[in-house]
Amino acid sequence: MNLLIVGSVAVDSIETPFGRADNVLGGSATYASIAASYFASPGIVGVVGDDFARKHINLLKKRGVDLKGLQIESGGKTFHWSGYYEGDMNQAHSRSTCLNVFESFHPRLPERYRRAPFVLLGNIHPALQLEVLGQMTSPRLILCDTMNLWIKTEPKLLEQVFRRVDVVCINDGEAGQFCGTSSLPQAADHLLRLGPRRVIIKRGSHGVSIFGRRSFFSLPAVPLPKVKDPTGAGDSFAGGFIGRMARSRTINENAFRRGLAAGTVMASFCVEDFSCRKTAGLTSKKINDRAAALKESVRLPAVDLI
Amino acid sequence: MNLLIVGSVAVDSIETPFGRADNVLGGSATYASIAASYFASPGIVGVVGDDFARKHINLLKKRGVDLKGLQIESGGKTFHWSGYYEGDMNQAHSRSTCLNVFESFHPRLPERYRRAPFVLLGNIHPALQLEVLGQMTSPRLILCDTMNLWIKTEPKLLEQVFRRVDVVCINDGEAGQFCGTSSLPQAADHLLRLGPRRVIIKRGSHGVSIFGRRSFFSLPAVPLPKVKDPTGAGDSFAGGFIGRMARSRTINENAFRRGLAAGTVMASFCVEDFSCRKTAGLTSKKINDRAAALKESVRLPAVDLI
Repeated sequence: MNLLIVGSVAVDSIETPFGRADNVLGGSATYASIAASYFASPGIVGVVGDDFARKHINLLKKRGVDLKGLQIESGGKTFHWSGYYEGDMNQAHSRSTCLNVFESFHPRLPERYRRAPFVLLGNIHPALQLEVLGQMTSPRLILCDTMNLWIKTEPKLLEQVFRRVDVVCINDGEAGQFCGTSSLPQAADHLLRLGPRRVIIKRGSHGVSIFGRRSFFSLPAVPLPKVKDPTGAGDSFAGGFIGRMARSRTINENAFRRGLAAGTVMASFCVEDFSCRKTAGLTSKKINDRAAALKESVRLPAVDLI
Repeated sequence: MNLLIVGSVAVDSIETPFGRADNVLGGSATYASIAASYFASPGIVGVVGDDFARKHINLLKKRGVDLKGLQIESGGKTFHWSGYYEGDMNQAHSRSTCLNVFESFHPRLPERYRRAPFVLLGNIHPALQLEVLGQMTSPRLILCDTMNLWIKTEPKLLEQVFRRVDVVCINDGEAGQFCGTSSLPQAADHLLRLGPRRVIIKRGSHGVSIFGRRSFFSLPAVPLPKVKDPTGAGDSFAGGFIGRMARSRTINENAFRRGLAAGTVMASFCVEDFSCRKTAGLTSKKINDRAAALKESVRLPAVDLI
């Protein structure tokens, strides 16, 4: 276990123009840990009820995800989200969000989780993200994700989180919302001034960029003829990114770039099917082949233009 | 003269959150030819009235733009556009569009223009674009641009244009509108089936992608802390692209990629100031330096991820 992932573990019912899937495995920690499992040894901190299906546990175990930190509340019901997508599927519409056992969740880290060198603070209440940080003894790299809800309701707490992490991962709309600007370079600059080494701005089907104080790197999304279900794409990105970081001997610009590629590749697999169906059954070859195609898609030959 | 550019030559009055500029040089052929002039020898086909200021003529001449094909209607008034941008400046709002001499414009190509190997059909009525094609004797590469108006009012004529050009240049919203899909890979596939070798899809501040039947390449926009006026960005892109193509001995994938870089660089300079103020006064060094920064921003190290 070299990567701690905290976030939601859920059961989802999802409808898209390409079909539906009921009571399937979901949640930010789930998507992220499965994506990360190809690169690192992740352990989850989260909570489910005792209604959580055995097959879900088995799938996570099969991917080598450490479940010591997954609290199982007896008599409780697992977080359930039901939602749908229309048209270009750029936005999720919620039908119902039953937090259930997640409502009173407080992350309790098993002893050896506290020494994990890599940490992904998935999208949960920033107060809980801070609780996790308070329990870590010697992290090498901390990545945090968030969402529009916390930017609106808990901007001060969220700022505290941003001040304490190494990498902030946020989408373009959220970055604009938090920083009060529609300019991504300005938003990135604002966030970098809070202290993180890098700011990752996700732009959905337009790709992703990573900003440092003196660096900028960008990747397109993998062009997919058919996107079936966008749920979990951001979490799979974050999991792939931090998982790949955990494989790097040195944490430098090249490592961040490889991390961005790993995240992009894992997000592209995620959206090709419902839930974790695609990401749970990959091989090293499939992942490396797609990474090679991604690399070719940004290969710019020598560029003295004039 | 190795590059024919047909389009509008105009006088603009523009207001953005960062200032205003009245009666400045504008028009698609203007922006495109200035951008192209750093890479090729462009000649313009367009029309102005005899009110068109001498300083505008001089600026184009200074950039080496051949004006043999610029018709000057005596007693006529030049095309004038007045508009403004708000907020994130993603959309231009027109205050007035006075076509004036442009309303009855028909492109008449001087003899030597007909033999130009490279052609940019700027955004004008597709019937006029076809008139130009009918006058060309032996083009090596034809690029066409268009806009939402023609997609809505002249889809059949526009399709005829797409069938006869080598490269279609279109923005993401327009591609979706023409092809009836929100998926860019699907839209690109639809357009490629009409016959062009490549389809360029512009995504504004998200960058640009070029699709071939078996190729895909993408570049981010240059991250700029301050965008002053987005007018002419698309035209400067098209001009930079086709200008750089005209420098390539062989028209292959690498040439297209360099063209995309040149277009991206020229568009980034364009938006840094009103009108052609920035693009008219560049140097090879400034252009090459920005191209080098762009290349670095997509440099992905070896990517066997696992």
